Amino acid sequence: MADLHGFSLPRTPEGRSSLVPSPPWHYAGEMLVIEYWCDPAAAARALPPGIAPHPTDPGRAAALFVDWQSCTTGQDELVDPSRSQYKEFFVVLNGVIGDREVTTCPHIWVDRDFALVRGWIQGFPKKLGSVWMTRTFGLGNLADPGIRSGSRFGATAAANDRRIAEGTVTLEHVSPGGPTHNDPPLVNVRHFPRLAAGHHDDPAVHELVGSRSHTRSVSEIWEGSATLSFSAAPNEEHTAIAPVRVGRGFRLAFAYTVDDLEMVQQVSGRVGG
Amino acid sequence: MADLHGFSLPRTPEGRSSLVPSPPWHYAGEMLVIEYWCDPAAAARALPPGIAPHPTDPGRAAALFVDWQSCTTGQDELVDPSRSQYKEFFVVLNGVIGDREVTTCPHIWVDRDFALVRGWIQGFPKKLGSVWMTRTFGLGNLADPGIRSGSRFGATAAANDRRIAEGTVTLEHVSPGGPTHNDPPLVNVRHFPRLAAGHHDDPAVHELVGSRSHTRSVSEIWEGSATLSFSAAPNEEHTAIAPVRVGRGFRLAFAYTVDDLEMVQQVSGRVGG
Amino acid sequence: MADLHGFSLPRTPEGRSSLVPSPPWHYAGEMLVIEYWCDPAAAARALPPGIAPHPTDPGRAAALFVDWQSCTTGQDELVDPSRSQYKEFFVVLNGVIGDREVTTCPHIWVDRDFALVRGWIQGFPKKLGSVWMTRTFGLGNLADPGIRSGSRFGATAAANDRRIAEGTVTLEHVSPGGPTHNDPPLVNVRHFPRLAAGHHDDPAVHELVGSRSHTRSVSEIWEGSATLSFSAAPNEEHTAIAPVRVGRGFRLAFAYTVDDLEMVQQVSGRVGG
Amino acid sequence: MADLHGFSLPRTPEGRSSLVPSPPWHYAGEMLVIEYWCDPAAAARALPPGIAPHPTDPGRAAALFVDWQSCTTGQDELVDPSRSQYKEFFVVLNGVIGDREVTTCPHIWVDRDFALVRGWIQGFPKKLGSVWMTRTFGLGNLADPGIRSGSRFGATAAANDRRIAEGTVTLEHVSPGGPTHNDPPLVNVRHFPRLAAGHHDDPAVHELVGSRSHTRSVSEIWEGSATLSFSAAPNEEHTAIAPVRVGRGFRLAFAYTVDDLEMVQQVSGRVGG
Repeated sequence: MADLHGFSLPRTPEGRSSLVPSPPWHYAGEMLVIEYWCDPAAAARALPPGIAPHPTDPGRAAALFVDWQSCTTGQDELVDPSRSQYKEFFVVLNGVIGDREVTTCPHIWVDRDFALVRGWIQGFPKKLGSVWMTRTFGLGNLADPGIRSGSRFGATAAANDRRIAEGTVTLEHVSPGGPTHNDPPLVNVRHFPRLAAGHHDDPAVHELVGSRSHTRSVSEIWEGSATLSFSAAPNEEHTAIAPVRVGRGFRLAFAYTVDDLEMVQQVSGRVGG
Repeated sequence: MADLHGFSLPRTPEGRSSLVPSPPWHYAGEMLVIEYWCDPAAAARALPPGIAPHPTDPGRAAALFVDWQSCTTGQDELVDPSRSQYKEFFVVLNGVIGDREVTTCPHIWVDRDFALVRGWIQGFPKKLGSVWMTRTFGLGNLADPGIRSGSRFGATAAANDRRIAEGTVTLEHVSPGGPTHNDPPLVNVRHFPRLAAGHHDDPAVHELVGSRSHTRSVSEIWEGSATLSFSAAPNEEHTAIAPVRVGRGFRLAFAYTVDDLEMVQQVSGRVGG
Repeated sequence: MADLHGFSLPRTPEGRSSLVPSPPWHYAGEMLVIEYWCDPAAAARALPPGIAPHPTDPGRAAALFVDWQSCTTGQDELVDPSRSQYKEFFVVLNGVIGDREVTTCPHIWVDRDFALVRGWIQGFPKKLGSVWMTRTFGLGNLADPGIRSGSRFGATAAANDRRIAEGTVTLEHVSPGGPTHNDPPLVNVRHFPRLAAGHHDDPAVHELVGSRSHTRSVSEIWEGSATLSFSAAPNEEHTAIAPVRVGRGFRLAFAYTVDDLEMVQQVSGRVGG
Repeated sequence: MADLHGFSLPRTPEGRSSLVPSPPWHYAGEMLVIEYWCDPAAAARALPPGIAPHPTDPGRAAALFVDWQSCTTGQDELVDPSRSQYKEFFVVLNGVIGDREVTTCPHIWVDRDFALVRGWIQGFPKKLGSVWMTRTFGLGNLADPGIRSGSRFGATAAANDRRIAEGTVTLEHVSPGGPTHNDPPLVNVRHFPRLAAGHHDDPAVHELVGSRSHTRSVSEIWEGSATLSFSAAPNEEHTAIAPVRVGRGFRLAFAYTVDDLEMVQQVSGRVGG
């Protein structure tokens, strides 16, 4: 009997079925980054054990809406875009591990299955959602904001048929430095539960992990004023870290490659269920 | 009792609910145009009465995949993109009215309601579908084909959970003239049935209409080799006019405004049900 | 040149493509009916010309969530359910034409294209939405409310990624008379606009029409207490006629056939745009 | 700093956000079961290590289409059905572990995120798909097949906008014994990869697990003749185990509760990537 193949389930004779193809994973996309601050106590409660609140800028956070295209080395996915395109909305909170500044992602929604599971493998707590973002086509008519001072870009996110977040960025000028709230490396919790009776609070995988990427490129970045609001849902808690103050917004295109993950801290034993 | 307002249903006290807002409608988008030829006899059968087959290039046709953003004069729709973005796939057949070259659209699928009904108002026989198209972000990594010789763009369309069309364009060079199969003005059949018993073949509206638009702008156009295939579905007939020969493919961005429609020919009396 | 065939667009050589197949249309489904009252002045404003407010029970209305299956005489659609199933949420307002009690539907959302256009042909102002309704399977475990006193059924509707309505019915007993707010015949406005310049307020079709159906059957009806709430959206006005008082809720299955429509009143000339 | 709560990601201060709520999970639904046989050599190749081919009935398999409703003990999910309803299509292959008959699921598609991840926790290799199944409402008009001899039920599955499976069952009579191909206990592979460089073929979790459930109930089962076909997709391999012979089809409603999982065999060390 031959073995089965595939980086993820489903594992099959030919290995073509894996929901998440083997790394490396190449990404390119457009994003809106909106820097904001939430209630510092709420931010502290939302951080996973091992990450402490930001010592000098409490409540520091950012919201990101991204319109992605991704593929593995073979590029057939790019010409069958239902397997390569997805949109996502996520929040990062700023914190520290010792004296190392980090970000962590407490909430994220994407609109495709491969992106959902690829996220779980990296510790992103992805759920399905519906995400939209204003586009520009470089033509500048009334249906095309263009990249220029005064152009307004909006983005929205919904889950389970409820609008959960909306934001806008009104471009002012090329950004000298780009966004900073989302700049520190991402540290997330990889977590895979056990279902065996008596082990529901004893996950098979529960570890702090640090994102690693390379071959990064970025477009010209524009910045401007921003709006951002979160809306409640019965099975969501992102409104606990909703904006109490909104900072600058940024629009950029970005590309990188992911094929590695850093182990920051292995956690063993029971966790709060 | 006050009147109700709205260009389309629903008509309401404030007129904010109309599925299709009042013209003008502004559009901007990216498209792949793939020129092709189908069986000339099938093309002749698919033309509406009033349009004759192309006299010198029988079976001449084009397939278009478009990723659109549209709005009315007020631009709040652009920052709530679920109300302004849609994708569509359609076919045009070439023909003549007298000695005037025209195109007509026998099949079209879109992914949003406002676009579906806005299409019916213009005589586009829109159904819902799912349409995807490869994107570029100008960054040129492995997930971003870029606009350059050798870049490959794909597009797909599905309806009722069946893949109905797929195409690719592999860019070669800037196009000196752009696509020509889709160049003549579109003439479609506006048709709105009656449900009253005895009148099922006596539509309330049945007329040949010609599209009108203005304030058109276009990006640099690239062209290259193309592939195109149609797949059958029990409630679709587009495979009757599937490609027997595929010509050149084109990629461009395009913008225009629509606020008028030309009456070409009013049809009265019974039609084939 | 042969004629084209089809009750609706697209009209094609074989007539298999028509988005809406030729009547008769057969329907069967499960529904929640929630009777309510809205602000009488708002109800009066929302009625189309030709229908006067209910003289003795102002603000009388009902909300209906329906999980439908429909087909034409040939039943191949039933075994390819993406072409035969849909869900919808709608509101009816009670009123009178002369001394004849009627209802009219100012707002309705469905989740499939054929149902959307089939609605427009009957004067239902359908938009796309996402509708959900609790189901029962007759097994009565914790995941199955069953049909019995105390069972709770919920339903929700969303459009453009926003939750727009939610309701629940908690069953108490078999209903002696069934719901009454939605009982009078439906009279809607068939409306199909013109796009020709100068005619945007001069629709091609604008007429009051009365629904006709036959071969109706209904299950045992249960009734009980109900909740109902509407939520706002920038392009919706249903919250103007939101519940100020909620009455009884009902759960039933229902089937009928539609192949006719009554002309109530033809309207000519300009309408409020 | 307080701990975070939740059976799955996202883990949050209140534990309300977990994509998969804590067990027990209660299920109720309607299903079509279609028994079939595939190429025995292909079935043998598709079995995970630890499960041997069925010794006396090679190629034995079943296809199941299920329309589910599920919840945890609290029933608020049932009245917000976007969080409790989902549909799925899956295949089981029959095999043995020693002399114990088992089934295993090589391919499964569902239409909601919570069901996808809840499946991965149990070793079901779920991807997102679109699944439809004919319904009955007990009214028996032309849009309602009813449960009686001659009634025809269909079901379809699609993924990435491609139809991947279709089946029908034409009811003949109440089934004396119900389906048998899917009767032996399910044994699946729980698998959660590592992304750390050098460990892409060294999963964090890779174990054979056996499903456990209780409080099972079942409706009257009907059986009849069946059809079943699979269609290919570039990233799917289910057509390798497509039907070469189709057996009987069954229609039933079914309910159960899951809160446990049996460890069958822990696998350590490298797996074929």
